[in-house]
Amino acid sequence: MIEIERKFLVTSDAYKSEAFKQSRIVQGFLNTHKERTVRVRIQGDKGFITIKGISSSDGLSRFEWEKEISVIECENLLKLCEKGSVEKIRYEVKLGTHIFEVDEFYGDNEGLVIAEIELSNETEAFEKPSWLGKEVTGDIRYYNSQLSKQPFKTWH
Amino acid sequence: MIEIERKFLVTSDAYKSEAFKQSRIVQGFLNTHKERTVRVRIQGDKGFITIKGISSSDGLSRFEWEKEISVIECENLLKLCEKGSVEKIRYEVKLGTHIFEVDEFYGDNEGLVIAEIELSNETEAFEKPSWLGKEVTGDIRYYNSQLSKQPFKTWH
Repeated sequence: MIEIERKFLVTSDAYKSEAFKQSRIVQGFLNTHKERTVRVRIQGDKGFITIKGISSSDGLSRFEWEKEISVIECENLLKLCEKGSVEKIRYEVKLGTHIFEVDEFYGDNEGLVIAEIELSNETEAFEKPSWLGKEVTGDIRYYNSQLSKQPFKTWH
Repeated sequence: MIEIERKFLVTSDAYKSEAFKQSRIVQGFLNTHKERTVRVRIQGDKGFITIKGISSSDGLSRFEWEKEISVIECENLLKLCEKGSVEKIRYEVKLGTHIFEVDEFYGDNEGLVIAEIELSNETEAFEKPSWLGKEVTGDIRYYNSQLSKQPFKTWH
């Protein structure tokens, strides 16, 4: 139930042609407290409820619990969420033994693209694709829960 | 996904001998916002996550979504909850076609006993047991999410 993840900005759209899968994600938050978030997500034809805890001090690891639920349940729960849903297209790119999830945001977060990689431990090495930019692991501005409240378009 | 419920104080402990079932409940809240609550509950040997919306203006009906999860998942999620868990023994009493759930609170809510009945519509009649006291439907002080923050013992 502990997730270890590193997060990066993206410098070109080359990831699109390298992706083996893409899906649309719509998500809302029942809670965006910094110590615990409760997320409702529709991804393609599946629904999920996900609870995350506070990050470790280096931002690398975080408690995460997720359960698949129906899309209809998700739609009902999304109505209950705080204002500010997050919409994005997720591209999945395989590189070596890892998968990068590259999220291209829409709506109020248009212009933002973030790549994430899940690791099995905090020091695990991984191959870096050409389009991988600056690391933003642990920067809470890039948390989806924060992007729902302070979207990318308001940053400038 | 809409719950219709009426809530009452209790005037004697006669419900205990009338109960056909009793179970211990420990619950915490990931969110106690007035527009949405996210509750984690262990009841006997089962675990649940429950999301409730805002009540109707008369306090009678409320959006509710619940999913059974494992007790171990619950224990992990309880660690993440806001301070102030709620502990109670629930007695279930059958009367006619209805079941009253009578919650006897412990810890910081000791002394409080609340009976609840779930109805299929807002005008449905039901038989009243001898121990049923004042109705408190819609009084948010008696919401378990509020009792976790402002327990009964602090009311006086």
